[in-house]
Amino acid sequence: MINRIFFILILAGIPLSVAAALLHWPAVISFVLYCVTIIALASYMGRATESLAIVVGPRIGGLLNATFGNAVELIISIFALKAGLVSVVLASLTGSVLGNLLLVGGLSFFIGGLKFKRQRFNVHDAQHNAGLMIFAIVVAFVFPEVFSMTLNDQESFTLSIWVSAIMIVLYLAALYFKLVTHRGVYAYDEEKGENEEQETAEWTKSKSILVLGLATLAVAYISENLVHTFEEVGETLGWSEIFIGIIIVAIVGNAAEHASAVMMAYKNKVGVTVEIAVGSTLQIAMFVAPVLVLVSVFFEKQMSLVFSMPELVSMVLAVFLTISLTNDGDTNWFEGLTLLAAYMIMGVGFYLL
Amino acid sequence: MINRIFFILILAGIPLSVAAALLHWPAVISFVLYCVTIIALASYMGRATESLAIVVGPRIGGLLNATFGNAVELIISIFALKAGLVSVVLASLTGSVLGNLLLVGGLSFFIGGLKFKRQRFNVHDAQHNAGLMIFAIVVAFVFPEVFSMTLNDQESFTLSIWVSAIMIVLYLAALYFKLVTHRGVYAYDEEKGENEEQETAEWTKSKSILVLGLATLAVAYISENLVHTFEEVGETLGWSEIFIGIIIVAIVGNAAEHASAVMMAYKNKVGVTVEIAVGSTLQIAMFVAPVLVLVSVFFEKQMSLVFSMPELVSMVLAVFLTISLTNDGDTNWFEGLTLLAAYMIMGVGFYLL
Amino acid sequence: MINRIFFILILAGIPLSVAAALLHWPAVISFVLYCVTIIALASYMGRATESLAIVVGPRIGGLLNATFGNAVELIISIFALKAGLVSVVLASLTGSVLGNLLLVGGLSFFIGGLKFKRQRFNVHDAQHNAGLMIFAIVVAFVFPEVFSMTLNDQESFTLSIWVSAIMIVLYLAALYFKLVTHRGVYAYDEEKGENEEQETAEWTKSKSILVLGLATLAVAYISENLVHTFEEVGETLGWSEIFIGIIIVAIVGNAAEHASAVMMAYKNKVGVTVEIAVGSTLQIAMFVAPVLVLVSVFFEKQMSLVFSMPELVSMVLAVFLTISLTNDGDTNWFEGLTLLAAYMIMGVGFYLL
Repeated sequence: MINRIFFILILAGIPLSVAAALLHWPAVISFVLYCVTIIALASYMGRATESLAIVVGPRIGGLLNATFGNAVELIISIFALKAGLVSVVLASLTGSVLGNLLLVGGLSFFIGGLKFKRQRFNVHDAQHNAGLMIFAIVVAFVFPEVFSMTLNDQESFTLSIWVSAIMIVLYLAALYFKLVTHRGVYAYDEEKGENEEQETAEWTKSKSILVLGLATLAVAYISENLVHTFEEVGETLGWSEIFIGIIIVAIVGNAAEHASAVMMAYKNKVGVTVEIAVGSTLQIAMFVAPVLVLVSVFFEKQMSLVFSMPELVSMVLAVFLTISLTNDGDTNWFEGLTLLAAYMIMGVGFYLL
Repeated sequence: MINRIFFILILAGIPLSVAAALLHWPAVISFVLYCVTIIALASYMGRATESLAIVVGPRIGGLLNATFGNAVELIISIFALKAGLVSVVLASLTGSVLGNLLLVGGLSFFIGGLKFKRQRFNVHDAQHNAGLMIFAIVVAFVFPEVFSMTLNDQESFTLSIWVSAIMIVLYLAALYFKLVTHRGVYAYDEEKGENEEQETAEWTKSKSILVLGLATLAVAYISENLVHTFEEVGETLGWSEIFIGIIIVAIVGNAAEHASAVMMAYKNKVGVTVEIAVGSTLQIAMFVAPVLVLVSVFFEKQMSLVFSMPELVSMVLAVFLTISLTNDGDTNWFEGLTLLAAYMIMGVGFYLL
Repeated sequence: MINRIFFILILAGIPLSVAAALLHWPAVISFVLYCVTIIALASYMGRATESLAIVVGPRIGGLLNATFGNAVELIISIFALKAGLVSVVLASLTGSVLGNLLLVGGLSFFIGGLKFKRQRFNVHDAQHNAGLMIFAIVVAFVFPEVFSMTLNDQESFTLSIWVSAIMIVLYLAALYFKLVTHRGVYAYDEEKGENEEQETAEWTKSKSILVLGLATLAVAYISENLVHTFEEVGETLGWSEIFIGIIIVAIVGNAAEHASAVMMAYKNKVGVTVEIAVGSTLQIAMFVAPVLVLVSVFFEKQMSLVFSMPELVSMVLAVFLTISLTNDGDTNWFEGLTLLAAYMIMGVGFYLL
């Protein structure tokens, strides 16, 4: 059902988006149109990536998920960077981290918790992820920030390049660890049975690649137009570009993923929920953000890994809150509500900014 | 015995306090007199609340404890707010958090630990409380601080209003979670037997209500006079108003509670100790502080939830230290000493400020 | 074998160092010569301390290790203080903390993890150490920093004196706790067998004392000359004094210890590794640093416990990262790599500074 809706949205959305771009429709209408179409396209990219991952086996599949999982976010951000909107890109990275941890995590735990008194997941995974979040967001994001106060812009960018390179290497090492050397080492005993069930791919290999390729092209085309509407939309609705980046771009880039995370919690597979929410956060922080820094070398305006203070603090607080709620491998509706309350506080703060 | 002393203190303290207020006795003498009388009255309010809580059953009783537990602190703070002493109120909130976590927690663990090699309590409760402390103090207090650097005063106050409203809602949700939907879900197996013992109320329902009402009135009357002595006492003794707020008001407001927390640890009921110390901290942060922000709308001088940097950092450090010491559900004398050492460091710091 | 190399290095290093000092050899050559000789001497001091600790029994032995374990670092720092190089001393304290936690811990876990899939150690010890690290580095180091922004220099130093005194008392209490009141209380069941094996001292008591005394004298002599080369070496190689302090002095002061920590991980005794890395960190933070503050009272230039912002933040981040990786009592190669990645990021940052 939902797939059919997305199909119709794409059929209608692509020609309308082209029309909007060529005929210069009003910014707010174009903005909404682009966003909806990208959300629909993202769901197709997600399904194609998943099918492909099943066909090629768990190792390459894991790698595929880890690189294409946030492809939409990456594409929008590259076009925003090209347009010189560095602060929008940093804001949308922040928004993705906050959205994944607080909004998706919160909604999932809350809705799952209304149905089930307690939901449990693998404590080992939670601790492994906690370490990575501390590394990526608390160490690798805070560090350039503090040093940028003393360094000049050029030195600051050099430091960002180094940090980015180190993060990408560590991200790849984390995949190697998870998919190769320590696959299943920390698995739950109870899980083993469950995981045995063979997943079947929705689409064949060639269809998956075709869908992935076409959808990526379409997303790229629409993203390029989307980023040019930000300024006017901001003026019309009284939103700052930061707010658009943090709330809107982050939600558009991750909507499909978000829906499936909540669905999984509702089916009592809260472990999958955590994997999506935290996994996506780590991908944004350790892969998308560093790649954007490296890519920005080729653009006019370079992007240092230096967030604004409110952005950085929000992410660090979100990480600490998430870790303190998930490190017992047990969730309930109240923990979900706590995460949502934090998201609301941050939303109000960024709206006022 | 101790109850008799408090009875005598009240009998003597109330008329003397009235005399001091009407005849304008020297500030330092009045100050000491008021403090002692309030401590004695607070112990009566505590006993009345407890009796009432037993009579009305655990759910409403829990709600009663959760709202009247820090009534004295709340009353003093409201009169201080009315007198425009915003920074004293913020300092006394800080002092209550530090006092509960470091002084009460520290003393209890230390004294209990001298008698018992290891004292254990429910790990689940500790983790639940850790999450709430991170939410209340690390997220909800740090956030307005960081944003207030960019926002103007009016926006800052708007943000504080929102944060306060969200905290109160979450506080009520936490009560609902603990008293209704998840009551006993996370209980220790060993505890179950213990908790079966029926508590009997010290006083009847009507006597409890009468005592609570009269004591509250008396505390209100004395508090109004107390806050007007701060300035002169500070000048006479060379203490800053911040120091008075952080050390003195915090101890006066919580003395009775503090005593019973230490007593419980000495009886090897360290779980109750933690419930008092951490529970009271959460009540201050998630209920008293937000209520004061909302109440300040009606006063001349409004109170944003923006602490001074040393206050905020002290609270955050106290939370991290407490969590790292209590998250294994096991205490000993050395952990108590560590908390006391942190309290001492902070006391010296605020004295020098 | 390695011991023979160190013996030769000492035989050659001491006369050459004397020559370098008297004949004013070029700074860079002298610097390298002094460093190598000190590393060799440090290994002899380590062996002498260990032999002595075995001879005198576990209690006094523990005390010996706890005070002589970082003697080299202490001696170099005292001479640097005497020469007025306060910021170099603070940098080398920072470097020791970062080196022990990130470099030694990282290398050990990584190399140990290449050989063994999972390495386990006592969770109770990890949590005990986590609490102390939070106290020492997050509370006791951050606190004077934040207050120093408001206090004047004299008040700031007074606060540092208090903090130092409290830390030393707590450090002694921690030893008393570990060696006397709670010895073996939290031991692993599995460990008990292992620990029974009697260790035999390498050297006799009198030989140990003789070696310790002579090596200490030699280290003192060379350290005094070493600190006077910093300025010229910095200029010649383009390194800031901070970088020399953070990377070079820290590595020289701890090289011998570092080697044995990695060795232990390779032998699957990762518990000993953690004891060395974290134990040495705590010794630096709770004993060496406070002693240096107190000693500086007698020198011209006094040392407040106020690190530079990048130093402080680096240490705090290193503590949080280490705790999040070690609090499950389980390590693997990837956790080691994560620590090394953090060390590299910090190394680049301090190099650019």
